[in-house]
Amino acid sequence: MSCLRLALAQRNATVGDIKGNAAKVLESVAEAKKLQTDIVVFPELFLTGYPPEDLLLHPAFVNDNIRELKELAKKIEGIIAIIGFVDKGDISPPLYNAAAVIAHRRILGVVHKICLPNYGVFDEKRYFATGDKPAILALGEIPIGINICEDIWVGDGPVAAQARKGGAKLLINLSASPFHSGKVGLREKILRAHAKKHKLYMAYVNLVGGQDELVFDGASRVMDPQGRILAMARSCQEDLLVADLAELQRTTTHPQDGYPGGQRTEKRYKQKNKQIHYIFLPALVSTEKKQKITCTFTARPGRLEEIYQALMLGTHDYVHKNGFEKVIIGISGGIDSALTAVIAVDALGKENVIGVTMPSLFSSEETKSDATVVAENLGIMFFSIPIHSIFQSYLETLKPAFEGMKADITEENLQARIRGNILMAMSNKFRWLVLTTGNKSELSTGYCTLYGDMSGGFALLKDVPKTLVYELSEYRNKKGLSSVIPRTTIERAPTAELRPNQTDQDTLPPYFLLDEIVEAYVEKDKSLNEIASRRGEGVRELVRKVIQMIDTSEYKRRQAAPGIKITPRAFGKDRRFPITNRYRL
Amino acid sequence: MSCLRLALAQRNATVGDIKGNAAKVLESVAEAKKLQTDIVVFPELFLTGYPPEDLLLHPAFVNDNIRELKELAKKIEGIIAIIGFVDKGDISPPLYNAAAVIAHRRILGVVHKICLPNYGVFDEKRYFATGDKPAILALGEIPIGINICEDIWVGDGPVAAQARKGGAKLLINLSASPFHSGKVGLREKILRAHAKKHKLYMAYVNLVGGQDELVFDGASRVMDPQGRILAMARSCQEDLLVADLAELQRTTTHPQDGYPGGQRTEKRYKQKNKQIHYIFLPALVSTEKKQKITCTFTARPGRLEEIYQALMLGTHDYVHKNGFEKVIIGISGGIDSALTAVIAVDALGKENVIGVTMPSLFSSEETKSDATVVAENLGIMFFSIPIHSIFQSYLETLKPAFEGMKADITEENLQARIRGNILMAMSNKFRWLVLTTGNKSELSTGYCTLYGDMSGGFALLKDVPKTLVYELSEYRNKKGLSSVIPRTTIERAPTAELRPNQTDQDTLPPYFLLDEIVEAYVEKDKSLNEIASRRGEGVRELVRKVIQMIDTSEYKRRQAAPGIKITPRAFGKDRRFPITNRYRL
Repeated sequence: MSCLRLALAQRNATVGDIKGNAAKVLESVAEAKKLQTDIVVFPELFLTGYPPEDLLLHPAFVNDNIRELKELAKKIEGIIAIIGFVDKGDISPPLYNAAAVIAHRRILGVVHKICLPNYGVFDEKRYFATGDKPAILALGEIPIGINICEDIWVGDGPVAAQARKGGAKLLINLSASPFHSGKVGLREKILRAHAKKHKLYMAYVNLVGGQDELVFDGASRVMDPQGRILAMARSCQEDLLVADLAELQRTTTHPQDGYPGGQRTEKRYKQKNKQIHYIFLPALVSTEKKQKITCTFTARPGRLEEIYQALMLGTHDYVHKNGFEKVIIGISGGIDSALTAVIAVDALGKENVIGVTMPSLFSSEETKSDATVVAENLGIMFFSIPIHSIFQSYLETLKPAFEGMKADITEENLQARIRGNILMAMSNKFRWLVLTTGNKSELSTGYCTLYGDMSGGFALLKDVPKTLVYELSEYRNKKGLSSVIPRTTIERAPTAELRPNQTDQDTLPPYFLLDEIVEAYVEKDKSLNEIASRRGEGVRELVRKVIQMIDTSEYKRRQAAPGIKITPRAFGKDRRFPITNRYRL
Repeated sequence: MSCLRLALAQRNATVGDIKGNAAKVLESVAEAKKLQTDIVVFPELFLTGYPPEDLLLHPAFVNDNIRELKELAKKIEGIIAIIGFVDKGDISPPLYNAAAVIAHRRILGVVHKICLPNYGVFDEKRYFATGDKPAILALGEIPIGINICEDIWVGDGPVAAQARKGGAKLLINLSASPFHSGKVGLREKILRAHAKKHKLYMAYVNLVGGQDELVFDGASRVMDPQGRILAMARSCQEDLLVADLAELQRTTTHPQDGYPGGQRTEKRYKQKNKQIHYIFLPALVSTEKKQKITCTFTARPGRLEEIYQALMLGTHDYVHKNGFEKVIIGISGGIDSALTAVIAVDALGKENVIGVTMPSLFSSEETKSDATVVAENLGIMFFSIPIHSIFQSYLETLKPAFEGMKADITEENLQARIRGNILMAMSNKFRWLVLTTGNKSELSTGYCTLYGDMSGGFALLKDVPKTLVYELSEYRNKKGLSSVIPRTTIERAPTAELRPNQTDQDTLPPYFLLDEIVEAYVEKDKSLNEIASRRGEGVRELVRKVIQMIDTSEYKRRQAAPGIKITPRAFGKDRRFPITNRYRL
């Protein structure tokens, strides 16, 4: 007898890469076996990647994932593997978000997710049916609850049934839980509450990796029945988290029947608890005497570090999973493009980042010099492509059509669009992905140009408010050996430099105030009254103006590049707002 | 005694315009009263407009809609009005997709939608809770079932309960059912099946109007218990459909109790049918002797007419509901831009459509002349803005960066992007909305340029496959007094004219074949095997190539302008595909 050893395979799956994800399963199974693990667990929908979205409507896709699972099962022995996949009835839908329990080269049983999230970025009721019973893996004498992601987020949900009716001593949860700032704390709170309330071990394995607008940050955990963290995986990196669960003793004998977990017990269980879906395994499959291990215990990153890591991972994975190697960034001398370039270099390596400065007659010497300094500090390839003569040629061509009209925002947008075109031309010519540099404050208020600075494949800072852009820049400057982002860039009043002496604050309220309004309105659904009354009635008209800017810029956001969600509510599928909308607060 | 007179108020609501929509209710109530109607019914969520999407997450929005409903109720008497709105519990969510029954200046009862669609373009489980009981309005001796949209689309759903348990003689359904080609026939089939199976009248009132990517086409219907159409409203226009239901006799007396529908009956009903939610009204509220009316009976439009009307309505409403008056269209001399311009003129009037031709050195004399002919035929304002000198100035500026590189798609895209910039500059200067001209075949395969021909606010033909572009052009040419689209435009081999002697078929398979593959893969989720086996194995590689083009262009579609859904599955929220996706059929 010795205690149960559990491994959580916090791995990076790619959506649609069923064969590649299966190969990762086999690698991790081999690694876990070397560590004499009894059970190895993979994240939610690991085989398909998460979220597969409307790929799920293609029967061929679902069939391929099931075929691959069956192939996988044949190769797994000497360990129990629990793997997230898409299950379906024999002939047709409904589909289930499911976990397969595999041992002895067979699929012993399948667990269906019960609570299907259909809010925020989630659309699971679009695809899946609800599982009907909470599952228990009756492993010899040890009842183990298995469930999937949202199943632990519901107060009196499956966990209560698994613990009370099923007597679970350990609860294993397969998750694909997207990152936002503060999410790790929420997850720990939930895990701790279940552990203490039901006196059980909680093992939480989360996906890691970027998928379009989402980052899965891993940070898998094992908690003991007192709610203390036993083992803790890295954030935003692959990891294999191994933990010995001291209070759970392994059964190593192999009696044919009459043993705990054998056919008689099976019958007794089934009669007693019709609300539980049991999967039986008479005993653990590995019987060797174990080497001692030390549980992994990674320090939890701070708030800015956590966000910075998520931005790096999201960028890295979007670029690589979409088959790119290099990115190109328009570097203006402002703080947004500087931070974008720094994160890109940290994520991809300096040899894979190209900077372009595209000065106009309105560009100051200061910003031009800051752009060069950032590129030099980073050691990246750097182009300077002035836009003046192209701009003149547009003005010349448009002169007859614009006769008698004054210069206005049209000419400002034209400059931004010329820059967008140049970046896209470089992208087309050299197959470099364009990273856009706009932040959440700009995208909220529409302070950005469609087909101009919004041109590009991926918007790294899309969900980062301007005030956080400053914080992250300071954080990164302090973290490195030397500051990469020049002091002058951080301290200069923000400007789009599209007309003489322009600053952002000609058009927008101060960013500290703007970001507060954006957070209240966009992320927390607060009303004009609620926002104004907190700040004093003096700001009422300002708040109203900002809300109106947010509502009327929806059409721009609809055509924005995807970017990385780092707040509780990002633009994109997290917030589904009508463009045509006459509602005014 | 005379028979029950019913009016279906097929009106055009605007999302978020709660006050405006309420005003439309009062107008229609007045009109219906003039026609001595007993009951007037409005479409689903008429008060908020449909779909309100994440506006529903703002408590202030929901509260405003409820406040407005209460105000409305105070003004309604002498008729029964049934109005779609958003209901909520007293304090907080859940919300319900609901219908209020109003008479005698009071809200007599509220009906909750039971079946919530969460597929295709629908996200109703994101917002609403499920109603618990089917509703019957016990109107004197007449039991009337009331339910909402999806409630009639489910086989053994609420209608069966309303008819069997509730004894309904008439079923009123409030809908916001988006158009696609063929949808009218599907709706009639469903209505007829219910009418005949349960021997009841079916009154179906559908919203009319455009909302972002959706068009609600109206086409409200009343069917008799034999499944024959009694009355039929116009497609794609507002209408007030009035019908006398011969078999349903009105109770005009007002006894205090003991009459059918009085308190005793109320008690008896409630005890008998606990699964039914009853709303009681002792008798009809209007007692006058009625003038005879003739039921409206509009001819059902043909397939092309129906689609053409939907495109007109969708364009008209997107432009007007977003506060624009005029649109600008780049007219190339090709068929897509010609059809776009013709539909725009039909929808908005020729004084509100501006054409621009932007010839390059690769533009042929033929296309240049065809562009002018279309503009002349339509009588629209027309600019000619050649792009050659701007193009040269880009090439000049990019020369150092592109040194040693051959001309390729980069230079083709540049031309498209210059045109996009010119259109956007005109849009910025004159506040004209840019209509893009790309079709579904192009957008499927990515045969279009981001920030180039994809630049614009609304993509009229986004969901129209190229073969249908031809059909609609022929249809419109035949329908008018004279052909507006030149024969040469229809007959010339399609070309983007971005390099010498280019045609679409250098890159794409013939459109008849391409459109078949797009339909099979995008709209019907068919696999490579299924598609190839139907056409013969000879096309297998071609089909594979097209599917791959579709999958790898997802990033372009994510940044495309909204456009009008006219097929069973459009791009946009109807099809939610991952960009990062390694699955290959």
